[in-house]
Amino acid sequence: MPRRGAPGASAGAGALLRLLRDGAPRTRSELAALTGLARSTVTGRIDALLAAGLIAPTGETASTGGRPPATFAFNPAARIVLGADLGAAHARLAVTDLAGSVLAVTSADLDIALGPEAVLDWTVEHGLALLAEVGRPAADLLGVGIGLPGPVEHGTGRAVNPPIMPGWDGFDVPAYVRERIPVPVMVDNDVNIMALGEHFTAWPEYAHLLFVKAATGIGCGIIASGQVYRGAQGAAGDMGHIRVAGADDVPCRCGNTGCLEAVASGAAIAKHLTEQGIRAGGSLDVVELARSGSVPALRLVRQAGRDIGEVLAGAVNFFNPSIIVIGGSLSLAGDHLIAGVREVIYQRSLPLATRHLRIAAARTGETSGAIGAGAMVIEHALDPARLDASTDFKTNG
Amino acid sequence: MPRRGAPGASAGAGALLRLLRDGAPRTRSELAALTGLARSTVTGRIDALLAAGLIAPTGETASTGGRPPATFAFNPAARIVLGADLGAAHARLAVTDLAGSVLAVTSADLDIALGPEAVLDWTVEHGLALLAEVGRPAADLLGVGIGLPGPVEHGTGRAVNPPIMPGWDGFDVPAYVRERIPVPVMVDNDVNIMALGEHFTAWPEYAHLLFVKAATGIGCGIIASGQVYRGAQGAAGDMGHIRVAGADDVPCRCGNTGCLEAVASGAAIAKHLTEQGIRAGGSLDVVELARSGSVPALRLVRQAGRDIGEVLAGAVNFFNPSIIVIGGSLSLAGDHLIAGVREVIYQRSLPLATRHLRIAAARTGETSGAIGAGAMVIEHALDPARLDASTDFKTNG
Repeated sequence: MPRRGAPGASAGAGALLRLLRDGAPRTRSELAALTGLARSTVTGRIDALLAAGLIAPTGETASTGGRPPATFAFNPAARIVLGADLGAAHARLAVTDLAGSVLAVTSADLDIALGPEAVLDWTVEHGLALLAEVGRPAADLLGVGIGLPGPVEHGTGRAVNPPIMPGWDGFDVPAYVRERIPVPVMVDNDVNIMALGEHFTAWPEYAHLLFVKAATGIGCGIIASGQVYRGAQGAAGDMGHIRVAGADDVPCRCGNTGCLEAVASGAAIAKHLTEQGIRAGGSLDVVELARSGSVPALRLVRQAGRDIGEVLAGAVNFFNPSIIVIGGSLSLAGDHLIAGVREVIYQRSLPLATRHLRIAAARTGETSGAIGAGAMVIEHALDPARLDASTDFKTNG
Repeated sequence: MPRRGAPGASAGAGALLRLLRDGAPRTRSELAALTGLARSTVTGRIDALLAAGLIAPTGETASTGGRPPATFAFNPAARIVLGADLGAAHARLAVTDLAGSVLAVTSADLDIALGPEAVLDWTVEHGLALLAEVGRPAADLLGVGIGLPGPVEHGTGRAVNPPIMPGWDGFDVPAYVRERIPVPVMVDNDVNIMALGEHFTAWPEYAHLLFVKAATGIGCGIIASGQVYRGAQGAAGDMGHIRVAGADDVPCRCGNTGCLEAVASGAAIAKHLTEQGIRAGGSLDVVELARSGSVPALRLVRQAGRDIGEVLAGAVNFFNPSIIVIGGSLSLAGDHLIAGVREVIYQRSLPLATRHLRIAAARTGETSGAIGAGAMVIEHALDPARLDASTDFKTNG
């Protein structure tokens, strides 16, 4: 919903910014022609974007005569964001510019079960230290993005019945952080911010992206038409409890049988290895065994890839993505996981949906979540529809 | 992409129209406050929307004194659209207003295999007759929407390798129709326009909708965040060849085994009945048998519902829809199909995704495709982002 009270001068700047975000410098005349806006309107909006520091003059272009016209382009250095990826046992912070380039990072072992105050206090303290480190004034901070390892109601930024996060249920994360850092604060689950981080930094040209996090559990973040798709209750992408054909006898902690997570997660593989007499406490042990060449571990990882591929094959027919990105700790076990995924998807999905489908390993690494948390703030603040209706991004900090 | 040459005066009208489409009358001051636009800007845009006939004055509101301010609201009678639902053996046309209210319909048995010229000539001839019947001038026609019974490249409006449509592959449908009716022409597949027709007329408040067409084949149209979701190659929603757990021995015409369509389509049920010595030539025979109380037919329809529910359970976890609408000829067999669907989805999907999930029978009936084809044109023409960049909807006809 558009909000009241935003200044009118730069309303409508969004359509211009959308054009400029590709980085190409353009003149006022070019922008007027491309948007259909009146020249005088373009001038007013350019002034507003310049005042907000979101675009910058880029020198001059050749002209047919007289004074060369000024050109303008997106200015990714204009503002910065702070992104926090809070995992079950580990937290990671990143400060990036508006293009997602990392200016500073920090991380620490941090138990999410310490509860919201302790974990967010750490986040605020180390976030502010990171901002000081990059030497930018508080007014440059566009906002804070936070990822949590459980279901989040994105509209309010509260965790909803998180299974591994005692004390977090219903806690108002944005309000708590905003009291300490007075900028917009947005919250989403860890898989969504990882999907956005990968999309934003490594695969911006793929509008329909599935990011699979295969680790202790299995989850999926969905980018549809270039934006995070969350579904009706924010539960979209919950692929861990979709039934795998042929695994009907495997019980799952959710009470059903044959769920993907009960069959193909890092925890499930570790359990299988232990049953075979090979010591494996969790997904990191599985990765280590696979990397050291353990044949039983490699076989199980490959089969997990096939099982994940079986569920993804349905998602491919249903969602017709342009790319599937495989990440999470299990993906560090080598090519066997992704090979299993590819094998089944190309066999089970329809040719029309797989002809141009790319299946790739995650590229952005451990920082993808923190970058994505920041990207969530950037995408929201620079959203053309929102910019056209309101410009409160100018008044932050 | 925004286009060149659109008049500047009404650029930015989209944000206002988006607000006005709920039907509530609003004053210029209210619109300025709600959008953050300057009062002078609002006045200019209101004038442009009035000139295009898309909004209308709605009398006067009470004021604190002096002359009461004028109010404006969306004017659904302003323009009309022609929608065509071209099936395998049957064609249906509808003329509606901008709210999807049907002004006139016509239909006929028409074999899609007659090829594009013959089928589109019929569409144009009877479409023009329908326009004459409602007595509106050609300038009132906003555009023509067409649904085809096979894969369509939505961006170009061409059929792509359609299995049951000889002569249609690659045919430029919009160009052919535009030569005869000079307005924008948009094309999509039959399931997408049915989904849009149901959403537009019966379930506008459900932003994330899955429409399942269970008939001779099984397909799904997806509404995500209020818009048709097509995926990377326009193949999204192709659920007929997703594997059903426990049906690994059933061969499918696609070359795989266990596909939903091989197990639960009207054709598959008819085959099962025939094997049991009950004469059934296709899905309409199945419907008739079920309606007359045939226990074997009812059992098979119920099991088909369960199998469809099995595949939808994965889609529910993955996509987290707010509603699933079950349509197509098989849905006319009574409550057994939807009962089977509900049974499995509520058992197999996660509580978070099903707590508020509605599962309902289609409401709009046989005309949903034609209404949806028209709605596709309306949604496109009234799309705020597009309106902000261009206003060529004014110059149609």
